[in-house]
Amino acid sequence: MKVALRALCASLSLLCAAPAVHADGKDVIEYRQHIMKTLNEQAGVVGQILSGAVPDDNVLSHLDALALTASTALKAYTPKVPGGEAKPEVWSNWPDFSKRMNEFARMTAAMAKTGHEQGKDAALAMVVDALSCKHCHETYRQEKAKK
Amino acid sequence: MKVALRALCASLSLLCAAPAVHADGKDVIEYRQHIMKTLNEQAGVVGQILSGAVPDDNVLSHLDALALTASTALKAYTPKVPGGEAKPEVWSNWPDFSKRMNEFARMTAAMAKTGHEQGKDAALAMVVDALSCKHCHETYRQEKAKK
Repeated sequence: MKVALRALCASLSLLCAAPAVHADGKDVIEYRQHIMKTLNEQAGVVGQILSGAVPDDNVLSHLDALALTASTALKAYTPKVPGGEAKPEVWSNWPDFSKRMNEFARMTAAMAKTGHEQGKDAALAMVVDALSCKHCHETYRQEKAKK
Repeated sequence: MKVALRALCASLSLLCAAPAVHADGKDVIEYRQHIMKTLNEQAGVVGQILSGAVPDDNVLSHLDALALTASTALKAYTPKVPGGEAKPEVWSNWPDFSKRMNEFARMTAAMAKTGHEQGKDAALAMVVDALSCKHCHETYRQEKAKK
């Protein structure tokens, strides 16, 4: 959080200047990593709820956060900037990658909507289909060794 | 994500059994860490947007995700389970801690609402007040050395 705050505080003046923004490679990679890590944390929460490890009181908020974040994910990969844990196949197989990401956004949105309309049990029954992260990661992610 | 998926897949049967859930200490700590890490990642995104490092196309979704996650944060600390990076003061100063967390939820919700009603520039002007994470962390967080 400290890093984020430094960025926030250092940059308010830029807001007023309204510069044209051209993200460089490092920024692009960092941005998509923020998004994927958010998805990882929120999927972790849903996993805890599903396994009964923690109560499900806030599950609708977590499903909403997942859907919102998923809706931002594809765009984060639009700039063709290999690096981080993204394999080059993200861009060389873009039609497949983008189809999967759009499906992910669609499914998580449907799960959140179901939660609000039909209740949490109906939504949680959709989790395995909505959070099929592994299939995509096997093809498009080169997981780095944990530091 | 693999861990989350394992939890998801291993636990669907529990859903049907609808067990009474009593989170143990490790689960409680893990849950609140998922939430705080989500906040950290999304605040990082907002910092990148503010500094002009990445475009602001998805800023409203990020502000919504922040507000949603902030709304779940206080409840994650309700079980009195010291550990992780939470100092014991979280619970010994609970009236202050909970007041700050409620204020954080209120401010991030107001920022997101402003974004939808008045546009992103009006919302981003509220960032320094809404994301005053540092003040709270100085009192209530014992940051662990990075691994």
